[in-house]
Amino acid sequence: MIYFDNSATTKPYKEVIESFVKVSNDYFANPSSLHKLGGQAEGLINQARNQLAQLLNIKPREIYFTSGGTESNNLAIKGSAMMYKNRGNHIISTTIEHPSIRESLEQLKGQGFEITYLPVTSEGRINIKELKESIREETILVSMIHVNNEVGSIQPIREVGEILKKYPKILFHVDHVQGVTKVPLDFHECGIDLCSISAHKFHGLKGNGLLFIREGLRISPLLTGGNQEWTIRSGTENVAGIVAMAKALRLSTEKMEKELPNVVNVKKIIIEELKKENEIIIHTPFENSAPHILNFSIKGFKSEVVVHALEESNIFVSTTSACSSKIKTVSHTLLGMGVDEEIAKSAIRISLSFENTDVEARKVIKALQQTIQKLGRTMINNEV
Amino acid sequence: MIYFDNSATTKPYKEVIESFVKVSNDYFANPSSLHKLGGQAEGLINQARNQLAQLLNIKPREIYFTSGGTESNNLAIKGSAMMYKNRGNHIISTTIEHPSIRESLEQLKGQGFEITYLPVTSEGRINIKELKESIREETILVSMIHVNNEVGSIQPIREVGEILKKYPKILFHVDHVQGVTKVPLDFHECGIDLCSISAHKFHGLKGNGLLFIREGLRISPLLTGGNQEWTIRSGTENVAGIVAMAKALRLSTEKMEKELPNVVNVKKIIIEELKKENEIIIHTPFENSAPHILNFSIKGFKSEVVVHALEESNIFVSTTSACSSKIKTVSHTLLGMGVDEEIAKSAIRISLSFENTDVEARKVIKALQQTIQKLGRTMINNEV
Repeated sequence: MIYFDNSATTKPYKEVIESFVKVSNDYFANPSSLHKLGGQAEGLINQARNQLAQLLNIKPREIYFTSGGTESNNLAIKGSAMMYKNRGNHIISTTIEHPSIRESLEQLKGQGFEITYLPVTSEGRINIKELKESIREETILVSMIHVNNEVGSIQPIREVGEILKKYPKILFHVDHVQGVTKVPLDFHECGIDLCSISAHKFHGLKGNGLLFIREGLRISPLLTGGNQEWTIRSGTENVAGIVAMAKALRLSTEKMEKELPNVVNVKKIIIEELKKENEIIIHTPFENSAPHILNFSIKGFKSEVVVHALEESNIFVSTTSACSSKIKTVSHTLLGMGVDEEIAKSAIRISLSFENTDVEARKVIKALQQTIQKLGRTMINNEV
Repeated sequence: MIYFDNSATTKPYKEVIESFVKVSNDYFANPSSLHKLGGQAEGLINQARNQLAQLLNIKPREIYFTSGGTESNNLAIKGSAMMYKNRGNHIISTTIEHPSIRESLEQLKGQGFEITYLPVTSEGRINIKELKESIREETILVSMIHVNNEVGSIQPIREVGEILKKYPKILFHVDHVQGVTKVPLDFHECGIDLCSISAHKFHGLKGNGLLFIREGLRISPLLTGGNQEWTIRSGTENVAGIVAMAKALRLSTEKMEKELPNVVNVKKIIIEELKKENEIIIHTPFENSAPHILNFSIKGFKSEVVVHALEESNIFVSTTSACSSKIKTVSHTLLGMGVDEEIAKSAIRISLSFENTDVEARKVIKALQQTIQKLGRTMINNEV
């Protein structure tokens, strides 16, 4: 099996699952319980929090555990909006955000908020000048994806943070779900106030994520109750999942330090080969893009057809983001980058992990070439 | 170790953890992915949904997976309020709800909602007449805990459902988190529209729950994004946790059918012995209470002192609900039942699982008697 769909989700590391099992068996108590079993469970959370904080170069107190990237993004957007709605009703984002940002912003529109979606270039990047011009007196939040989940383009987070330093009342949220352990980001140095992370994107377990909230900043909770996570996120903590997430981030960070050149190399091999094919248009920009994501279209071949053809060879890639793949809509990101709608309907995303090899890359290329030949020219007239 | 804190959380069954591991290893794909690995993961969710539906006597389409009881309760309350705020702004609940209900209702107050908290009797039950009288033209929701998490009192859900049948525009939400697999409840027969459940209360894993939403009913989502769970709860599904939850509910339901008399018997042994102690006041009502929860005070002994004294004998009980045990507040539930504040400060909760035995019950009684003797009379003057 060649699994090239790591932006949808990654295979949990063996050690991550082992940690989960150990904690679920031996430290199952409720961390809020007053007795020592509760204290032990709470101790494990603190330990994981410290480790995560160290790996992310932030303070333990700045970590708020959630059920994943979608919750982190929702909490950042809606929690900021609810907390600071009296300050203003304008939010700036981009046209190429993950649905959990886009839909949260659209929900806020119904509550009187105005949203500016910054356009992106054909390289999938915003224009800093346009960001500056879009700032208003009423702007309370800028939310931006660091590494786009569909094409891998990287936003100029540092520059945005630099600009926003002049506007201390505008919060800066970054969706770092696809970037973490792939494209380094120092939250504090970049002036980030809120940052979302999801464990299952770096070989952790589904159902676990965190939101970084800069020390001293307060937002409204979405889930209220037993006042866990300093009242910002109530609910019995998923202790085993949290410990497993810390383990996953440590292992993936270590891998990043050693294996990143390998990922870059695998991607490079694929790009070089794809470039030779006339039918192929590469959407992922060559500069300012993440090492693990590659998006392209095979002209005249609908994405689904290619995905299913490749899976015959036990190769797994995706059409667009997993979150949208079953809804028959064309990629917002590609349309935002000015890609023709028909071409966008043929988009394929390859997304790599540290485990993928150059041998796999060559196999995928070969399978793609065979697919193009096999499905052949007849496809174009029938399907497009 | 004698673990008598099962209302805080339960030890996950071995088979539950095994299911989790199996799915995490072998079916790790994103269920939204278009390829067959995604399809397999989606298939597992459907299978779990079907099994849960059968066990709960509801339709698969009525199950919405969440990250746990707190999220289910928040979604039920806030999702209903947001969806039907144009119908009315009045909600009815009780004075003895879990914090995830109480805090959600309090948050809604800030948005123009009016909340009626029905008082309870000294037996911890609402008065049906008072419920009837509290219904107004603007009432849109009644939310009630089935089995109270602190004292185990059972609300007359069937009667409430009967009354509300005359008010088709009033939604009926039940917090069934403490009741499931302990006190049977047929959602449809009782006219329930929304019902919350949490996996870790029946030997499943933390971070997993579900909200029953009656077929045809629509509420607003709290977490928006990739449109999972029929757009009501976005976010990559915790496939392994969901499968594990179905396994846990099946095993616990089987246990309930066989072992419930045993739980009743263990509780009875403890009650009989506690009754003999002059210093002990039992708060849990003898009728209309769950088989697994027993709440009492030892006059003159602060709860924390007793909890810590018992843990010396490797016995684990709790002060109040786990969610509130580290916050120095007196139990809302006990105060709501008219218990004197000083007595409420001495409350101890014992909560049983199907695994607890009469031998354990006798050991706990003995340890309690020793604790009372050991801490002695000096305590009273110093501590109270």
